[in-house]
Amino acid sequence: MGTYRIAVLPGDGIGKEVTKGAVEILQAVATRFEHEFEFVYGLIGGDAIDRKGTPLPDETLDMCRQSDAVLLGAVGGPKWDQNPPHLRPEKGLLAIRKEMNLFANLRPVKFYDSLIDSSPLKEDVIKDVDLLIVRELTGGLYFGKPSGRRMEDGEEIVVDTLLYKREEIKRIITTAFELARKRKKKVTSVDKANVLESSRMWREIAEEVARDFPDVELEHMLVDNAAMQLIRNPKQFDVLVTENMFGDILSDEASMLTGSLGMLPSASLSTSGPSLYEPIHGSAPDIAGQNKANPIATILSSAMMLRLSFGLHLEAVAIEKAVQQVLASGYRTADVAKKGQRIVSTKEMVDEIKATI
Amino acid sequence: MGTYRIAVLPGDGIGKEVTKGAVEILQAVATRFEHEFEFVYGLIGGDAIDRKGTPLPDETLDMCRQSDAVLLGAVGGPKWDQNPPHLRPEKGLLAIRKEMNLFANLRPVKFYDSLIDSSPLKEDVIKDVDLLIVRELTGGLYFGKPSGRRMEDGEEIVVDTLLYKREEIKRIITTAFELARKRKKKVTSVDKANVLESSRMWREIAEEVARDFPDVELEHMLVDNAAMQLIRNPKQFDVLVTENMFGDILSDEASMLTGSLGMLPSASLSTSGPSLYEPIHGSAPDIAGQNKANPIATILSSAMMLRLSFGLHLEAVAIEKAVQQVLASGYRTADVAKKGQRIVSTKEMVDEIKATI
Ligand SMILES: CC(C)[C@H](C(=O)O)[C@@H](O)C(=O)O
Ligand SMILES: CC(C)[C@H](C(=O)O)[C@@H](O)C(=O)O
Repeated sequence: MGTYRIAVLPGDGIGKEVTKGAVEILQAVATRFEHEFEFVYGLIGGDAIDRKGTPLPDETLDMCRQSDAVLLGAVGGPKWDQNPPHLRPEKGLLAIRKEMNLFANLRPVKFYDSLIDSSPLKEDVIKDVDLLIVRELTGGLYFGKPSGRRMEDGEEIVVDTLLYKREEIKRIITTAFELARKRKKKVTSVDKANVLESSRMWREIAEEVARDFPDVELEHMLVDNAAMQLIRNPKQFDVLVTENMFGDILSDEASMLTGSLGMLPSASLSTSGPSLYEPIHGSAPDIAGQNKANPIATILSSAMMLRLSFGLHLEAVAIEKAVQQVLASGYRTADVAKKGQRIVSTKEMVDEIKATI
Repeated sequence: MGTYRIAVLPGDGIGKEVTKGAVEILQAVATRFEHEFEFVYGLIGGDAIDRKGTPLPDETLDMCRQSDAVLLGAVGGPKWDQNPPHLRPEKGLLAIRKEMNLFANLRPVKFYDSLIDSSPLKEDVIKDVDLLIVRELTGGLYFGKPSGRRMEDGEEIVVDTLLYKREEIKRIITTAFELARKRKKKVTSVDKANVLESSRMWREIAEEVARDFPDVELEHMLVDNAAMQLIRNPKQFDVLVTENMFGDILSDEASMLTGSLGMLPSASLSTSGPSLYEPIHGSAPDIAGQNKANPIATILSSAMMLRLSFGLHLEAVAIEKAVQQVLASGYRTADVAKKGQRIVSTKEMVDEIKATI
């Protein structure tokens, strides 16, 4: 019986289809649980470049700031690949993360019994996997300056900068510990402390933060080893916390534990102000507009919104249960279908989940 | 009937055991094919810190430069983890790479029929995988300056720098194309061009280099996607080329395609001067000195040495065949053994391979 204002940013490619699906699911939840969700729409990414000349128009940002939560689809596509850096769709995504201070990106990876056949990994490796990647989202290589080309001694060189403030590292690690406390009480801090100065500071701060959480176990793992261990024995993990770029790589890799990127939701939390929810997949230009995309990652992202932004646990569980049930009944979009299984469209998948709620 | 001088740098932990094994294999090859291999030994890593006060003594470097090839074990261990940066074992490894100009790190990943049970991945995914990761080894985040902490506006910040010269990118990509030409004629250039300036320059140079190799196909792939595709469908790859840190992460991940890091050799090539050969695994302090380590990665590295540095193809094949045969006969070190299989020691494994040559 609450009233919530949700900013929807469909973005590009399949972003439009999957957010449409998630909005329908949220509407079904509103009806069943007697809430009022107001949806307001904004432009971001390539779409915004085409219509407003910038990947993140001010109106969009203002609208998001005045909402209770943001639901985002995906951005990008070949149409804008040759654009100069400031006119690239991804800049819109990076800008909204930065502007809204969305420093903590939560990417849960959960095993689905019914998708066992879709994963390239063996059953005993992935059965019962339940881990959470906490990715730092507003610092590191993504935002550090200088970033660009210059001439030095007659040679062209290019740099990007991996930069962190102490406080930025501290708050993301603290967030990871707080989340671990509510889970299996283990934090794996992933770094490259045998090479990078930033990682050595990261490790030091992790040790400091750990002192305030005596009930949570802390382990350090080098990023190359983590990339291996995620595949070798993912069940060893509870919460992984890592810097922006490492988190980007490891979470896409981890999607294979569930069989498809199309299954993984995410939440991006700010220190204060509204949070943003988005699937971890991209805009998939190759299948855009074909009613083929897997809407589940976005639908599960909206469940995270209900739980984390609105405190609506029952409602979140209702969505998650519905997804599980529909998968168990054998419905599959193309990305997770195996030979012989009937493939459903985006719309059919959404309808099934809606009917199940 | 050639004479070759090989510098052996055992390093720390299991580095000592695995290089010892590889030297025995090389000696067996020398006998059988009537070559003369002279082995000279040098200190590196923690061992060098303890005995010479530096992770890469000048004597070691001089000795390597005066050899025809270098065989390295591994460096590092908890004993030196609290040392200041310049007195860490890894600094020795990074320094020898830089000093000897070993810019191209070749990491082949090949499927072994007999190890199918050791991989966490399903058989249809990994069967017949045969890919080569070409990792840039002397630039990027590993070596860029500035790298360190400083105060800015009263806050402590830390930076590392991802830096490349145009020429550095060009030579590694050219190397990848040359190698692909002798293989399946496909290069996948891995970058993060939707975010990093360095990646945009990388992509641009890849396009330029590709023009000189009209017979080789070039594709670009974002690093997050590559981390996923390596697990999802590794057979799509022939040669992957990427910057230092991405290559570090992706090659450890890719080791799971063969079941163990203990299987993967590598070669590090310089523009001129001797090349260096080392397993991609680390010093594994937890099992060091226990006669448990898998010596195969180092033995296969010595096969790469014979082929790439000395042009001894038959001899290289003899080693590779022997490894294959011994695995097919069921011999397994602990890292690749499955329940019910008899586990052999490092020494037994070496003896078996030697007997087979
Ligand atoms: C689109 C891209 C900029 C983005 C990122 O790298 O953060 C995406 O890969 C993600 O993980 O959300
Ligand atoms: C030991 C470490 C410095 C090294 C690296 O990161 O290059 C290792 O992981 C490797 O891959 O050879």
